[in-house]
Amino acid sequence: MSLEVLPIVGLPEVGAGVVLADLIAERIELADGDVVVVTQKIVSKAEGRVVPIDPDDPGSVRELVEGEATRVLRRREDLIMTETRHGFVCANSGVDLSNVETGRAALLPIDPDRSARRIRDGLRARTGVTVGVVVSDTFGRTWRRGSTDVAIGVAGVAAVLDLRGTEDWRGRVLVGTEICVADELAGAAELVMGKATGVPVAVVRGVDPTWLRESSVAEEVVRPYREDLFR
Amino acid sequence: MSLEVLPIVGLPEVGAGVVLADLIAERIELADGDVVVVTQKIVSKAEGRVVPIDPDDPGSVRELVEGEATRVLRRREDLIMTETRHGFVCANSGVDLSNVETGRAALLPIDPDRSARRIRDGLRARTGVTVGVVVSDTFGRTWRRGSTDVAIGVAGVAAVLDLRGTEDWRGRVLVGTEICVADELAGAAELVMGKATGVPVAVVRGVDPTWLRESSVAEEVVRPYREDLFR
Repeated sequence: MSLEVLPIVGLPEVGAGVVLADLIAERIELADGDVVVVTQKIVSKAEGRVVPIDPDDPGSVRELVEGEATRVLRRREDLIMTETRHGFVCANSGVDLSNVETGRAALLPIDPDRSARRIRDGLRARTGVTVGVVVSDTFGRTWRRGSTDVAIGVAGVAAVLDLRGTEDWRGRVLVGTEICVADELAGAAELVMGKATGVPVAVVRGVDPTWLRESSVAEEVVRPYREDLFR
Repeated sequence: MSLEVLPIVGLPEVGAGVVLADLIAERIELADGDVVVVTQKIVSKAEGRVVPIDPDDPGSVRELVEGEATRVLRRREDLIMTETRHGFVCANSGVDLSNVETGRAALLPIDPDRSARRIRDGLRARTGVTVGVVVSDTFGRTWRRGSTDVAIGVAGVAAVLDLRGTEDWRGRVLVGTEICVADELAGAAELVMGKATGVPVAVVRGVDPTWLRESSVAEEVVRPYREDLFR
């Protein structure tokens, strides 16, 4: 059971109102069970989640970040660690100035699970093929340097795989093993995207078919405040 | 530039003193530039890092966990979040009872970067091929449910890719973008391993050749205590 991770190249600049499913379907022959990973940036652009900022006024970005936050957890110099409306904990509420026009900032999609469902439904309507979709973004983490791409929305593929109750290969029941495969899929896709190469979509081919089910990052991945030991 | 992720199946039970490079080389034709991801469990077994515990005495496991820790960060019921000698922050100091014999526990390798180098050197000596090696383990994270596989040691492949100073595809210099590709490689490998299927090694084929360099998780990934906003 091997996997392939395929970058989708040659996507044009995306503006508000663009149908991402159409752009993707034109550039790759998808197969049932593929998982299509789409970066937040082009989802936000297609959904019109790009707003003007004053590039000469750091305060205008800070206001935007705070407006997208439900809680500010930490501040250090330019970095504000916030909790967003979605329950994500990330730098600057996910507000992003890279790969957008000067004087503009991309905000996170309002409901990234819904964004993923929309792309999935569009791909099915257009191609007849049933895929999983992951909307990914680049988040830092505690305790470890460097960012990794993680899932902020999913459709048609498990976000978290619950192995509690299954047996390890010695026949012992595993306790407490839940794997966030959506984050691992997002990270695998990032390996063929790079930050600087402008590849905002990749396809992971060959995932375990039992992972293909209805799912949601909001419900399965976001850890409620009261469960968290480090907030 | 697509990637393949290939599970290595049919590995026998590993005991202390086993040469992992030999076991791996017998089961796959490696190519220059492949990245071999090996789970901590079989590295620990090969290095004899398996110790007896009293399965009927929870205190014996707790003592072991505390003995492996330099700091206890949080406790909740059976879970102890610790900082290990390596600087990793993880549950139970990485002490693991799954997929080992009853009455025994696997500890983390003493120096997982060195473990990775040893496997890499062994593969080169045996096959003449130069690969990258990642030693992976399954860690939980703050704020997000589910675990993912991350790198605890690397050899011959970048742990963190520093994109600061490179340009995005709009020609703007990226600020503050460091990607922990070693963690993304570990996660990609996990997607073909599963927890219950007994596949402790996978090969990622097709990574960007510029990533193949000397590296270290200890130096590049572990975030020093003073840098961390959440400890």
